[in-house]
Amino acid sequence: MMMMENLDMVNRDPNNINDHLKTAFDDVLAEVDGTHSIDCIWKASYACFHGCKSCFYNIFTFFCGIWMACFWGLDFAVISFAHVWCVTPTLRMCMIHCNLCQKTFGTWINCCCAPCCEVFSLIFSNIRVEKK
Amino acid sequence: MMMMENLDMVNRDPNNINDHLKTAFDDVLAEVDGTHSIDCIWKASYACFHGCKSCFYNIFTFFCGIWMACFWGLDFAVISFAHVWCVTPTLRMCMIHCNLCQKTFGTWINCCCAPCCEVFSLIFSNIRVEKK
Amino acid sequence: MMMMENLDMVNRDPNNINDHLKTAFDDVLAEVDGTHSIDCIWKASYACFHGCKSCFYNIFTFFCGIWMACFWGLDFAVISFAHVWCVTPTLRMCMIHCNLCQKTFGTWINCCCAPCCEVFSLIFSNIRVEKK
Repeated sequence: MMMMENLDMVNRDPNNINDHLKTAFDDVLAEVDGTHSIDCIWKASYACFHGCKSCFYNIFTFFCGIWMACFWGLDFAVISFAHVWCVTPTLRMCMIHCNLCQKTFGTWINCCCAPCCEVFSLIFSNIRVEKK
Repeated sequence: MMMMENLDMVNRDPNNINDHLKTAFDDVLAEVDGTHSIDCIWKASYACFHGCKSCFYNIFTFFCGIWMACFWGLDFAVISFAHVWCVTPTLRMCMIHCNLCQKTFGTWINCCCAPCCEVFSLIFSNIRVEKK
Repeated sequence: MMMMENLDMVNRDPNNINDHLKTAFDDVLAEVDGTHSIDCIWKASYACFHGCKSCFYNIFTFFCGIWMACFWGLDFAVISFAHVWCVTPTLRMCMIHCNLCQKTFGTWINCCCAPCCEVFSLIFSNIRVEKK
């Protein structure tokens, strides 16, 4: 089990699963050369953007984050249990049955169609290609 | 027979049959740079996620795991017995019969269609490919 | 978190996300050789273009910039929260289910179609090509 001490507080997305969520200021707002607003406005915009984003994100996570984490913990416990103890063994059993069906069906279709196919293959047994 | 002493307590999926079930914390929840929640909330989320998951998974396995294992043990014993002692020999017998049918049918269809196919093969006997 | 001191006041589009917005004077107005207006008119046009653009852009950003920045900050906080805490875990769960479906469907289609394909492959098992 991963220990609390190993929790990386700086890089919180080590597997890059949310890499599409780049929403820093310069990913969203950008003024090209020649179209600059007044410096103080640009600074204030930066402060407001970051302030609002951090503030609201922190409020949301403060009120919901822990419950969401609990919910997903429970959810994935159920899914893990279901898959490990029910689904995978059932699938293995199905595969055994399917293998049987495949063999039976294969034998039968072999019996019916193989002679035909072998005969029809004679059509291609006499190809002569002349290269100029 | 696998001995109890050889049971690998650390790697419990040596054949990687449940590899899709990666549900560690950093496989599910991840915050990109620039959008971090308060440290204590992130830590608490981690603790809650892992706590809930371990707790519920342990409860499920504690109450059901052993019975499920018994059930699947019984099930696969039945299937193994049926396949080894009934299905496979039956299949072998069918294959022998089918082989006979196939040969008979093959002889017959060969008699009827082989001349036709051989004649039709003349269609491809005169291919001229010109390379420029 | 990115600090206010690191805010680049000169290059305000470090990630080049608005690179298509080149609207300097010589990106918009240009006279070819042989078709030149009077020099003072060209200079006045330049002054007016830049004056108007800066003036109105500054007015707009002065009155709306900060509120827009707040609005986008809030917006991206909501989006980040939704993605980090809801969408990504749901997606992970869907992927687990899909993996199951994929395996089931793969086994089933193998069972049905593999024998047919193997038999029909016999048609091409007898190709004889004679090169002249």
